[in-house]
Amino acid sequence: MLGLMQNWPLTVDKILDHAKNWHGDREIVSRSVEGPIVRSTYAQVHARAKQLSNALLSLGIKPGDRCATLAWNTGRHIEAWYGIMGIGAVCHTLNPRLFAEQLCYIINHAEDQVIFTDLTFLPVLQENRAKMPTVKHVVVLTDEAHMQPDVFPGALCYETLIGQQSADCIWGGFDEQTPAALCYTSGTTGNPKGVLYSHRSNFIHTLVTMGTDVMGISATDTVLPVVPMFHANAWGLAFSCSAAGAKLVMPGQKLDGASVYELLETEGVTFSAAVPTVWQMLLGHLRDNRLKLSTLKRVVIGGSAVPEALVRAFRDDYGVSVTHAWGMTETSPLGTLATPTGKTIKLDAEEQLRYTLKQGRPPVGIELKLVDDNGARLPHDGVTFGKLMVRGPFVVGQYFQGDGGVILDDEGYFDTGDVATIDPDGFMQITDRSKDVIKSGGEWISSIEIENIAVGHEKAALCAVIGAAHPKWDERPVLLVKLEAGQSASKEEFLSFLEGKIAKWWTPDDVVFVEDIPLGATGKIDKKLIRERMKDYVLPTAKATVSA
Amino acid sequence: MLGLMQNWPLTVDKILDHAKNWHGDREIVSRSVEGPIVRSTYAQVHARAKQLSNALLSLGIKPGDRCATLAWNTGRHIEAWYGIMGIGAVCHTLNPRLFAEQLCYIINHAEDQVIFTDLTFLPVLQENRAKMPTVKHVVVLTDEAHMQPDVFPGALCYETLIGQQSADCIWGGFDEQTPAALCYTSGTTGNPKGVLYSHRSNFIHTLVTMGTDVMGISATDTVLPVVPMFHANAWGLAFSCSAAGAKLVMPGQKLDGASVYELLETEGVTFSAAVPTVWQMLLGHLRDNRLKLSTLKRVVIGGSAVPEALVRAFRDDYGVSVTHAWGMTETSPLGTLATPTGKTIKLDAEEQLRYTLKQGRPPVGIELKLVDDNGARLPHDGVTFGKLMVRGPFVVGQYFQGDGGVILDDEGYFDTGDVATIDPDGFMQITDRSKDVIKSGGEWISSIEIENIAVGHEKAALCAVIGAAHPKWDERPVLLVKLEAGQSASKEEFLSFLEGKIAKWWTPDDVVFVEDIPLGATGKIDKKLIRERMKDYVLPTAKATVSA
Repeated sequence: MLGLMQNWPLTVDKILDHAKNWHGDREIVSRSVEGPIVRSTYAQVHARAKQLSNALLSLGIKPGDRCATLAWNTGRHIEAWYGIMGIGAVCHTLNPRLFAEQLCYIINHAEDQVIFTDLTFLPVLQENRAKMPTVKHVVVLTDEAHMQPDVFPGALCYETLIGQQSADCIWGGFDEQTPAALCYTSGTTGNPKGVLYSHRSNFIHTLVTMGTDVMGISATDTVLPVVPMFHANAWGLAFSCSAAGAKLVMPGQKLDGASVYELLETEGVTFSAAVPTVWQMLLGHLRDNRLKLSTLKRVVIGGSAVPEALVRAFRDDYGVSVTHAWGMTETSPLGTLATPTGKTIKLDAEEQLRYTLKQGRPPVGIELKLVDDNGARLPHDGVTFGKLMVRGPFVVGQYFQGDGGVILDDEGYFDTGDVATIDPDGFMQITDRSKDVIKSGGEWISSIEIENIAVGHEKAALCAVIGAAHPKWDERPVLLVKLEAGQSASKEEFLSFLEGKIAKWWTPDDVVFVEDIPLGATGKIDKKLIRERMKDYVLPTAKATVSA
Repeated sequence: MLGLMQNWPLTVDKILDHAKNWHGDREIVSRSVEGPIVRSTYAQVHARAKQLSNALLSLGIKPGDRCATLAWNTGRHIEAWYGIMGIGAVCHTLNPRLFAEQLCYIINHAEDQVIFTDLTFLPVLQENRAKMPTVKHVVVLTDEAHMQPDVFPGALCYETLIGQQSADCIWGGFDEQTPAALCYTSGTTGNPKGVLYSHRSNFIHTLVTMGTDVMGISATDTVLPVVPMFHANAWGLAFSCSAAGAKLVMPGQKLDGASVYELLETEGVTFSAAVPTVWQMLLGHLRDNRLKLSTLKRVVIGGSAVPEALVRAFRDDYGVSVTHAWGMTETSPLGTLATPTGKTIKLDAEEQLRYTLKQGRPPVGIELKLVDDNGARLPHDGVTFGKLMVRGPFVVGQYFQGDGGVILDDEGYFDTGDVATIDPDGFMQITDRSKDVIKSGGEWISSIEIENIAVGHEKAALCAVIGAAHPKWDERPVLLVKLEAGQSASKEEFLSFLEGKIAKWWTPDDVVFVEDIPLGATGKIDKKLIRERMKDYVLPTAKATVSA
């Protein structure tokens, strides 16, 4: 016996249909790549997305075909997004911050047939054109007046392409398991791997993120997604804002403090989402120019751990509430958010801050567990750290083309590659990456925790901690420090700075001053590269042991 | 090609698992049927629900079997709810306000095998015991000390039954289309019909209702579901509160103003949901005793149209925000809510009120259309009224046992039986029931609109408007008035009271003073019965036409 409710497949075309039908006049405002601010509505975006669907059909695109976007957050990108997905094709968001070599690898691996690109990226596409044999068409997200045929001969003009088409196109009507989107991981180990989202997984993720304790987007909100659509789906905002009928403000390519501030104020933004560096730039701009934020109420921050000073500045100087979030491409991406519970809401502001600085708790639909190296469950005591494993309807089951083979454990959980604690109140805190955690005498040391403290030293510009081989302890921590320009410092200065702030046995065995600490495509410290560079390094303590 | 996300069926057992794992200490407080306030937690309710599952298995209950509840809102009812659904059996909520005859009809139609009942209902079950041949066990939701073997010999004691069982029981693991719950419509026409919810439909409904613009339940909320679990699933609160980790305050059988007030204040309730009559009783109690509400922030009101005075009193006297909602058993039940949009939030309080008094707009997942008698779509102009049709993943597809045959139109929409307008801002307003709307000269007249105005007359206790046959106009409205005790009035008094408040051609052709206006099981005016009573009535205007 089955339930007798309606058969209504969860396909994302219905989300933009909803926006058109119930919030048709609600605005989508974009800072265009060409320069000016341009204004559109959900009804217009819906009609143009359908025109785009017809254009794709006329180009021979079939269900399942991959169509890529290499684009900033703009209204046109949203049109492409829904236009591709609506007909059952797969929207493959490319990250323009990747090296050209990686970009080509990903395009070829995905077998992209069309690339929708902003003008910004024509040169890199032209340079690598010969290395993308599957790509039949490059469509430039602009009008005829701004086309650059000299930069990329033969590219199609977006406005011309869709202008020829009818806004009448049948969307959906397929199984909700149909793939909708493809996004590759940043690939700090090995080649990037593709996560193939389904309509179902995107729809369920959208519903979950609309919850009050998650993103909680309302029709009354004006939302600025600074987080790019190519970075883990703009944390679902292109879907959840359409579903809620929120006004969308798309920042284009200008993410500096002044540009973000201008949009926040002129468009009356109430909610925004971005990585910490964007907010650092904004706060710097506000301080330098003695500005205030008049409409912003809440920001969600993720991508890397939120610095305490950032939360305090937003809270105390600007009256903005910060929600710390964690997720990854493999979780669509939202996994946890540090929104208050019935218990934490009653704490005083300083005590609440301790919870805000954790990555938070999972919404319904996300299951988490902490396990040791043998897969045995570890307690939620806020102290024990273990591998963070995740399960749910919008968590990856396998990578595209079978890369990486079986990636789930016996219980169906995916290994996030993060090491974390979970406290008795359910708040998860990332303590490290599995491959970066330092295993010393059978115990784990968090490289990130030491880094975060060390970088607070006034002379430090950047710090990184890695494990170095040790004959007795297996591994011991080494602190790498890039000093602020013009500074000099001794090893002892940094070791004594750490004293009392970390457990004694966590104290690095050595401090190495370096010219450069490399960052990866998503702005995180590239420890893989650091380890390569340090491959011939030998710990002084290891040498001592050897010579002893 | 299919997406490559995890296979994670949407089954509701995972909702209570989530509550246990992440909000295990969060309280569920009940006013017990035995009298005292009793306190439990999600972890305890989870363990006891699993014990109940084992008890059902030991009684021979199999997946798909119907197990009924005839019970008030308490923690035990929640345990039964999840314990039944967790093993794939169907939780059939019985409405104790139905006549015994209807109750027996429903129990037999559903072929219920077990009935979980509160002590309150033992007499009616005992009286009708012989008329329920499928029922093998009656389980009384109490402990041994409160059992009443003299009232119902042979009933099982809930606490004893589950006390013998382990809290270790495997839940879920079945298809998400598996039926989870069964609820019969109140059946104002013909026999009650059963709506068979699936795990999937309940889970999706839960996610949708957690949205900020819908119920928006947060972990920080303390929720009092006054709306009964037997009345359209307590509007999903048994699921959404568990999913959010909200504290639950269950009112048991005492829904009078004093009892509701006591719980609101002593438990720190922030959110509640009920039909208008409950709030009228509460406001009466507050006024009579000059009380204030210290923690309540928001109430959702549905079941029938919200009187303007109620919204004003909550808003102006108590600082409580009212959300007007519409739904039905067939929509799980939430269909629309009058939460503000980006446009309406900017209006002044009086203008906003006009929107609050409408039934509101659909969340994503609910599709609405207005059609005329031929199924043609009507405009969303706020004036034209038409039949309200609804489609979505938690809307009924067919009734249990095939009752009523095909109930969806060619596009898959279900006819709500309501007549409504939708304004250009997307706010729907119910103007009547299809069977009550008065068809006069090819145009429709809303019986409810006239009733709502007429009942504002100071001498009126209750008013009803029905259509009476007319040889020229097909139907003309007749106003039935039940006067306040001790009052007398003329027809002209009521007709002149209506003057200027409704279109001239809507003016009733007659006013009939009656001793009684009958109400149905859900507290709504029983127009079917009124029409039966008035079957020999002839309009004076019709007589005039005939004799002319």
